[in-house]
Amino acid sequence: MSIYKSLKDEAFEANMEIPARNLAIYTWGNVSAFDSDKAVFAIKPSGVPYDKLKADDIVVVDLEGKVVEGSLRYSSDTPTHLVLYKAWYQGEYPQIRGITHTHSTFGVAWAQAHKSVPCYGTTHADHGPEDIPCTEFMSAEMVKRNYELETGNLIVDTYKKLGKNPSHMPMCLVAGHGPFAWGNSASNSVYNAAVLEEVCKMAYLTLQLNPAEQPLPEHIMMKHWERKHGPGAYYGQK
Amino acid sequence: MSIYKSLKDEAFEANMEIPARNLAIYTWGNVSAFDSDKAVFAIKPSGVPYDKLKADDIVVVDLEGKVVEGSLRYSSDTPTHLVLYKAWYQGEYPQIRGITHTHSTFGVAWAQAHKSVPCYGTTHADHGPEDIPCTEFMSAEMVKRNYELETGNLIVDTYKKLGKNPSHMPMCLVAGHGPFAWGNSASNSVYNAAVLEEVCKMAYLTLQLNPAEQPLPEHIMMKHWERKHGPGAYYGQK
Amino acid sequence: MSIYKSLKDEAFEANMEIPARNLAIYTWGNVSAFDSDKAVFAIKPSGVPYDKLKADDIVVVDLEGKVVEGSLRYSSDTPTHLVLYKAWYQGEYPQIRGITHTHSTFGVAWAQAHKSVPCYGTTHADHGPEDIPCTEFMSAEMVKRNYELETGNLIVDTYKKLGKNPSHMPMCLVAGHGPFAWGNSASNSVYNAAVLEEVCKMAYLTLQLNPAEQPLPEHIMMKHWERKHGPGAYYGQK
Amino acid sequence: MSIYKSLKDEAFEANMEIPARNLAIYTWGNVSAFDSDKAVFAIKPSGVPYDKLKADDIVVVDLEGKVVEGSLRYSSDTPTHLVLYKAWYQGEYPQIRGITHTHSTFGVAWAQAHKSVPCYGTTHADHGPEDIPCTEFMSAEMVKRNYELETGNLIVDTYKKLGKNPSHMPMCLVAGHGPFAWGNSASNSVYNAAVLEEVCKMAYLTLQLNPAEQPLPEHIMMKHWERKHGPGAYYGQK
Repeated sequence: MSIYKSLKDEAFEANMEIPARNLAIYTWGNVSAFDSDKAVFAIKPSGVPYDKLKADDIVVVDLEGKVVEGSLRYSSDTPTHLVLYKAWYQGEYPQIRGITHTHSTFGVAWAQAHKSVPCYGTTHADHGPEDIPCTEFMSAEMVKRNYELETGNLIVDTYKKLGKNPSHMPMCLVAGHGPFAWGNSASNSVYNAAVLEEVCKMAYLTLQLNPAEQPLPEHIMMKHWERKHGPGAYYGQK
Repeated sequence: MSIYKSLKDEAFEANMEIPARNLAIYTWGNVSAFDSDKAVFAIKPSGVPYDKLKADDIVVVDLEGKVVEGSLRYSSDTPTHLVLYKAWYQGEYPQIRGITHTHSTFGVAWAQAHKSVPCYGTTHADHGPEDIPCTEFMSAEMVKRNYELETGNLIVDTYKKLGKNPSHMPMCLVAGHGPFAWGNSASNSVYNAAVLEEVCKMAYLTLQLNPAEQPLPEHIMMKHWERKHGPGAYYGQK
Repeated sequence: MSIYKSLKDEAFEANMEIPARNLAIYTWGNVSAFDSDKAVFAIKPSGVPYDKLKADDIVVVDLEGKVVEGSLRYSSDTPTHLVLYKAWYQGEYPQIRGITHTHSTFGVAWAQAHKSVPCYGTTHADHGPEDIPCTEFMSAEMVKRNYELETGNLIVDTYKKLGKNPSHMPMCLVAGHGPFAWGNSASNSVYNAAVLEEVCKMAYLTLQLNPAEQPLPEHIMMKHWERKHGPGAYYGQK
Repeated sequence: MSIYKSLKDEAFEANMEIPARNLAIYTWGNVSAFDSDKAVFAIKPSGVPYDKLKADDIVVVDLEGKVVEGSLRYSSDTPTHLVLYKAWYQGEYPQIRGITHTHSTFGVAWAQAHKSVPCYGTTHADHGPEDIPCTEFMSAEMVKRNYELETGNLIVDTYKKLGKNPSHMPMCLVAGHGPFAWGNSASNSVYNAAVLEEVCKMAYLTLQLNPAEQPLPEHIMMKHWERKHGPGAYYGQK
């Protein structure tokens, strides 16, 4: 039996959440699961529909981008995942061990409008007490160089430029493209991708009701973040 | 067998209506059921996903906030429920015996736009012949004192200030947060939470079609309320 | 066995299409089936949820409003159905033998905005080559007299005033309330209620995309109506 | 056994994707499958609901419009399919071997607003690096001559006038009517019809968020098209 079996199972189950949560139709999404012992990640193969996907189809890749297990071609977005793990997991955020990319409808709409999503309410603040950032459009030079790899760089640079902590705001929009989300596991990254979609829908509706709406007062925003993620967090079971 | 078994079952079944009616994703909602004989209420444990929730996980709490049965941590929103039961059940509205909190999409959108929902039609009037009120944003002092308890106070005070009867308008929006609803049972409170979501969606669409729309004429509004809830009510079975 | 069994079965099955087609939540809708031999109609009992409804619960009523079979209280909207059958079935439109009332979301939104729905496309024209009319708000006098009966009169008078043929436009919005639809059978009336909801959604979206949109050119509108309902109709099977 | 069995099965399965993907309610859509050996296509019979449709009901038609197998009346839109196969399959695009027509909600809304859908993002660019065109309204003369056949001519002429390649942009809106899509198989044409609906919804939401939104930069648009359909395409499995 493969030494990557449980990692591949984790990635498989997280990928199956994409259709279950309506985060993409057909093959338009992918999730990876990172193994910190072996320094590899398991990711969906390219273009395989979810209803045909099997745990054994999952491809295992190391941090040089070399396939260490799997006979199928990996997701075309694999270099994006790779860049994020290298920049963050290998950098200051070793807690980032799962990444999800989707084309969920409201997330894509905000990305196409190339707007960051203001934090209008506690649903959003519970998962990150700040805007969900939207990158700039990628330049022609970056596209030519290596599109998927540069998508990763674009995200990393956006977080740097804005002084954002990726573990405080685990969701991002790539302008003209769509959502990326991450978390401390593959499953947590899909959770954040589902949160992003719901929060993007709520923010859209809020703006339709009140185009001049302002972000949630800071003291409510931080309270909600703290009660879930702060040092004295008391949400959930111990 | 627990003397709270039927109360816990009632709370469990009402909580399961939250995912069944699409009133929240993941763990973003909770329902409590009040027992007027024993002066306790049964409520969802904190952060437990609905697909893992069992009737036996339900926590029973008395009106001092003391757990009288259950090994799990109760919902972080428990103090809000407590305040409402103390103010209303123990006050002038002993008919209020169930409370629901959700993050339903359109309800949250109105709460984020911090707007009361005008009564534009009979669907709304059938369940309360007046605006669904939206509170003010909670002050920094209140947040610091005891956030969840003050959420209850905010709702109670909003009803007092507006001269509203909570049994005539069993739904409320907390600004920047989301919907609370109540009723004469746990199940009736989830019903009202589902009504709130549907009415918020209808009101949203109405305003998009006609931004200058006025509330329903008073005589139609009151007729619909009376035929369901007035002294000569004739809707439903005897 | 009841001589109304097949009529009650027809009404039951048509009523069950309301939840199946998402035309109302809880108990917010009703369908009646008319029997032209016996001059009675079968209708949903008041306030019974669809998941509890049985064919045997259906109430049979004659054109004087007298219950001829059934132990439950009939739908509170029964007088509306009665007025429509008397005005139309007994008048110039004996083909009208089924009526549906719902609170479907987009239908209600247009009714709450008290706007007739322009015919923007062939989906609409296929089912009526003209606006879906919206009535005026009912006057206080009419509400006092007999609300549900006057709802029927309001619809009939709206069609008279506008010179509309109810068999050419089998759908109507009552201002501030919601949709009524009818057809040559109970099942056909629910079909029209579902068409109304879909067409109201399409028209809503059209106006959001182009607030100055004009109705479909007359020659396309009539062509679509004629190919389904005209003398040389060729849509469907012979 | 019929020599058309596999063709009819292909058409049947593709037609069943219309309700499965929510691309139309009731009977409002049809798919055809083209057989390049026999130069015939298999298409849905007119007005048969999807839940009653059987593979054996599918009608086989040759390029003169003559039924070569099947006892039911073919879809009233058959002449539109015929014109497209004659113009494209028999012309410069022999790869076009499946056609789908739906009344999907957002597709119809754009068609009713008679607007082409700009390419705002990569979801759209992946399937065609340009606007989804919308035709003009059909003239009264064309409607009188042969409505369904002229619908086909309208599409073909729109592509000619705009210098569009139907295999680069396999989706089109007919003004005031709705979507047509095609592909290299019946199944691929329904896929494109589902893509069209999702892309139309995303573009609608984008415009609501930013009415001045501009199309995606050309270099991103072409990159996405090329990585799926260009000479060095690397999306999907080999």
